Amino acid sequence: MKSDLDALMQERNFDAILVFGAAENNPPMTYLTGGGHVSGAALVKKRGGKTILVCNPMEREEAAQSGLEVHLYDEYPIDGQGGDSARTLALRLRAILSSLQVSGRVGVYGHVDFGPLFAMLSHFQTLMPEVQLVGEPRENGLFLYAMETKDESEVARIRRMGQITTQVVDLTRDYLTSCAVRADEVLLKEDGTPLTIGDVKSKIRLWLAERGAEPREGFIFAIGHDAGVPHSTGNSMDYLRLGQTIVFDIYPAEVGGGYFYDFTRTWSLGYATPEAEQLYHQVWNVYREIVERLQVNASFKYYQALACELFEKEGHKTPRTEKTPLEGYVHSLGHGVGLNIHERPMSGLTASEDNLLKPGVVITIEPGLYYPEKGMGIRIEDTYWVRPDGQFERLAEYPYDFVLPMKGG
Amino acid sequence: MKSDLDALMQERNFDAILVFGAAENNPPMTYLTGGGHVSGAALVKKRGGKTILVCNPMEREEAAQSGLEVHLYDEYPIDGQGGDSARTLALRLRAILSSLQVSGRVGVYGHVDFGPLFAMLSHFQTLMPEVQLVGEPRENGLFLYAMETKDESEVARIRRMGQITTQVVDLTRDYLTSCAVRADEVLLKEDGTPLTIGDVKSKIRLWLAERGAEPREGFIFAIGHDAGVPHSTGNSMDYLRLGQTIVFDIYPAEVGGGYFYDFTRTWSLGYATPEAEQLYHQVWNVYREIVERLQVNASFKYYQALACELFEKEGHKTPRTEKTPLEGYVHSLGHGVGLNIHERPMSGLTASEDNLLKPGVVITIEPGLYYPEKGMGIRIEDTYWVRPDGQFERLAEYPYDFVLPMKGG
Repeated sequence: MKSDLDALMQERNFDAILVFGAAENNPPMTYLTGGGHVSGAALVKKRGGKTILVCNPMEREEAAQSGLEVHLYDEYPIDGQGGDSARTLALRLRAILSSLQVSGRVGVYGHVDFGPLFAMLSHFQTLMPEVQLVGEPRENGLFLYAMETKDESEVARIRRMGQITTQVVDLTRDYLTSCAVRADEVLLKEDGTPLTIGDVKSKIRLWLAERGAEPREGFIFAIGHDAGVPHSTGNSMDYLRLGQTIVFDIYPAEVGGGYFYDFTRTWSLGYATPEAEQLYHQVWNVYREIVERLQVNASFKYYQALACELFEKEGHKTPRTEKTPLEGYVHSLGHGVGLNIHERPMSGLTASEDNLLKPGVVITIEPGLYYPEKGMGIRIEDTYWVRPDGQFERLAEYPYDFVLPMKGG
Repeated sequence: MKSDLDALMQERNFDAILVFGAAENNPPMTYLTGGGHVSGAALVKKRGGKTILVCNPMEREEAAQSGLEVHLYDEYPIDGQGGDSARTLALRLRAILSSLQVSGRVGVYGHVDFGPLFAMLSHFQTLMPEVQLVGEPRENGLFLYAMETKDESEVARIRRMGQITTQVVDLTRDYLTSCAVRADEVLLKEDGTPLTIGDVKSKIRLWLAERGAEPREGFIFAIGHDAGVPHSTGNSMDYLRLGQTIVFDIYPAEVGGGYFYDFTRTWSLGYATPEAEQLYHQVWNVYREIVERLQVNASFKYYQALACELFEKEGHKTPRTEKTPLEGYVHSLGHGVGLNIHERPMSGLTASEDNLLKPGVVITIEPGLYYPEKGMGIRIEDTYWVRPDGQFERLAEYPYDFVLPMKGG
């Protein structure tokens, strides 16, 4: 939570932190400003001090809405003219940090164009050598630690995205099962032509937009072989057919850079092959067993090891049996969800020991099995909140049917 | 164009360039890969050599669709285990650059989380001191130079976004002018409650989504005072009213990180105040005069100076009369448009001399006048392509009416 920032800075021996970049799609900026549309701002927070937003005078009204202490660039005049923007911005940064008497280690954050910021900070380091700029490896990042535990207002926003997500999933299910089907098992659109993955994706985008959500990092709606490749988002030209596994992994966010939800169901329309049925039941059993065993404050990767063990018993490859399996259970069990679609806690076998299921975390549980050569893949995923009382709460309910009967018969 | 990359590297004395970051919303990555969904990739191009995409084995199929030479991370084994991800990734980067015999100056690009890449590259510099990593200030960036001139296929994509943009603008106009109006001049929704800016924005998002476009960087639909603040995107709670200026600046992009279009109209519903009418005609006259005078290979900022001169004659403040005017003509005349909503050529008075209206550039022309204290703002904007024959072509046509008569009477 935001109240953890000073302690996290202390642990890292940071005198201050800096956040650069746009207002949108920039989680640390959104986290500290609460959103808003200040495009040319920088945030500075000294350890033990307030967060200060420094912005262009043109954006002062938007900046004020953040509730932060706002300063305008004009307050930090720059000696001398000329030179490139890296020099100008570096001089201004020196003026800002000098006014706050910052020295020592300073953490740098923000989703930005790398080159210009790197140029500016490289110049800045020659101007103010008493400041040591520090970039943190992703897994150590201060903001991922701060964001790890959510307060009630953050959970309410994630829960609302969960409601929208399941509404859209239900509209998709209803649409697919209402389609007519050709003799060769291909689904047909109203106009009698084959329904494609691209057609369905357009509808999903529309239904999300209608509800104020956006598929900011895309989504997966993949059938057959593509369903068996966890990173494939689905081929727009593929036809929808009966009896093939469809992986629908949807992770929309609040419009403009807010909280995500993460959710997956796998369907087979009309009927399923016995092999797909068997895989589905294996994934479902692992999902259920993991969820039943979840305990507050446990290590998240303990459950990844458990998932591997359960899948290995059924004869599948896992990340324990080989380094990067291309079939079987090929990924990790879940991850934190918030302003980032993937954040702490992490569940990978090599995750650090401090990735715990603490009260306040919001995580996914998403076991799966993938056999691209057989043209099939299965994943089941829900998002859970570890409540302050230590209970695990699923933030949106949705049925787990695998075979969806077609309404036409 | 891409064919300029080697010459641009030569000018900068770069032995190679590196591009990091996600596939989506990362213009240099999109530019070189043509899109696609390779999330954990890096691009390396040696001067005079091919562009190489290095990726995770799980993403090999998506990577192959780029048409680039693909290598897998596995091909660059890392000595020793342990340490943080910055160390691991730095060792891999050394292996990749060593295999290509890269040394000397290397430009670094990509839209990324700054901290982790900065951590990795800081470590890398200790491992491979014969490579000097260079970040370029925004205005000097190699990719902004390469992207400045577009080929026909890029222009076709921008033109298609222009068609979608003007369709959505027309739907908005049709919707607004069909509304019922209350005695106090507030527009009403179908259910008899006041129509808000937020309501209209939701419809615009929906109409864009239906057409495969997304408002990736938002859009402006602002009335009254907010119309007078160029950076205000509009207050969702404001009511739509007759006789107030509405600035509608819409800059959607292809879904998933493609080309933008940029377009603005200003409307006054039902009637306009004489003061707003006068401002509109002044902006329209400047717009028309600028467009009539556009010449291939001219300096873009020459037209900014011309716009200032014309507005000053009418008694307005401009960026020539003061540093950061808060009313009058407060911004620059236009900018290049492509995979970035703002790119070269730039028109600001301090832009470098090489910002020329060369054949192949795609630019906006967008004069405006802003009087927030009077509750009004005006802007007119179209996107133009400088064709190979030196003619300026407006990429989407749309009428310039200011007062939109209400259909109800």
